[in-house]
Amino acid sequence: MIQLEQDILSKNNGYASENRRHFADHGILALNLVSSPGSGKTSLLVRTIQEIGGDLACNVIEGDQQTSADAERIRETGAPAIQINTGKGCHLDAHMVGHAVEHLSPADGGVLFIENVGNLVCPASFDLGEAHKVAILSVTEGEDKPLKYPDMFAASDLVLVNKTDLLPHLDFDIEAAIANARKVNPAIRVLKVSARTGEGMGAWIAWIKAARAMALAGHETLKAGE
Amino acid sequence: MIQLEQDILSKNNGYASENRRHFADHGILALNLVSSPGSGKTSLLVRTIQEIGGDLACNVIEGDQQTSADAERIRETGAPAIQINTGKGCHLDAHMVGHAVEHLSPADGGVLFIENVGNLVCPASFDLGEAHKVAILSVTEGEDKPLKYPDMFAASDLVLVNKTDLLPHLDFDIEAAIANARKVNPAIRVLKVSARTGEGMGAWIAWIKAARAMALAGHETLKAGE
Repeated sequence: MIQLEQDILSKNNGYASENRRHFADHGILALNLVSSPGSGKTSLLVRTIQEIGGDLACNVIEGDQQTSADAERIRETGAPAIQINTGKGCHLDAHMVGHAVEHLSPADGGVLFIENVGNLVCPASFDLGEAHKVAILSVTEGEDKPLKYPDMFAASDLVLVNKTDLLPHLDFDIEAAIANARKVNPAIRVLKVSARTGEGMGAWIAWIKAARAMALAGHETLKAGE
Repeated sequence: MIQLEQDILSKNNGYASENRRHFADHGILALNLVSSPGSGKTSLLVRTIQEIGGDLACNVIEGDQQTSADAERIRETGAPAIQINTGKGCHLDAHMVGHAVEHLSPADGGVLFIENVGNLVCPASFDLGEAHKVAILSVTEGEDKPLKYPDMFAASDLVLVNKTDLLPHLDFDIEAAIANARKVNPAIRVLKVSARTGEGMGAWIAWIKAARAMALAGHETLKAGE
């Protein structure tokens, strides 16, 4: 079983490298959004795309076991989106994403959001070629999630603590949640956001723009070095 | 890959049959609780055990990637509990549960709650030998979850719509969520509960007692037929 797992992961890593090379060649910032089901990823993405407005070309790959509901919600913002249904599968893999990128042809110099299947376990092991994994943690989920699902929080560079508008109605200790995330990943960045009220959206979009500037800088370096 | 998946599932099903036979021999009602991370399974379980009081012996198997926090929370109620850490694994399997049952030796004629890893995909395929899968859906997760994770809701006999105390603060359409669950599983039973306020706990405990009476009836039939 361990050998088989390594074969699958090594095959996936090959496809992920191809994706990463494609993103670098085209100056695309690819973000892999990971979370529990129902953390509010799609609502957050809709608001993010609306607030980014014309500043930056946004493209979206949506992953779900079934339905194309999320891609439809994204397309209503005007952003191109493609839905991957994983069937029995519990995560996106780099091969699926490579195919979706071919169909979608995301614009050079823009942002590609990849919304993974809602699952705090399986997507942690599968590199899609993204620049960063971004974990979304809803305040309704409890402070202990980073400790119970440590691989996901260890693999992420940023955690968005979402649905902060609900804090007055919950017994959620946000500082304890952040401390738990830092226990498994001392370098993780944390932003508090609410897709409903807009709290923290400015800081999140500033983070995206900074990460995209880094992706472009890598792109320029590559061009200069060719 | 498909052959391998069938091998794993068929091996699991063998262990599940052994577990089911053990539960039947001992008149134990085994319930497999499945949900997203953060749906409130453990809090619900704590309150359930407290409200059942001395009426019924309760034992608990807790599944998580990491930590033994949940088993500790359960033990504070006085109920025996054992924690299984799945490491990289995204679900409990029947072999793990069989071992846990050996260690725990749950009382004859009681209820064994098996709290699976928080994950709406992987646990759907793995029979643990339980009498029923019970899905917990938090009202904070959105109405679309049954459609996006249909296997889990198709495999469950009961869905507990949890955290109903938060409904006044959400745009959640509970009737749409129930209709979506019935689309993928017309026979599914639905109960609305709140582990915080106690709403619906009476109906949920009545369901447990009825299911346990059925398990005992099966047990008596078995004894009579021996």
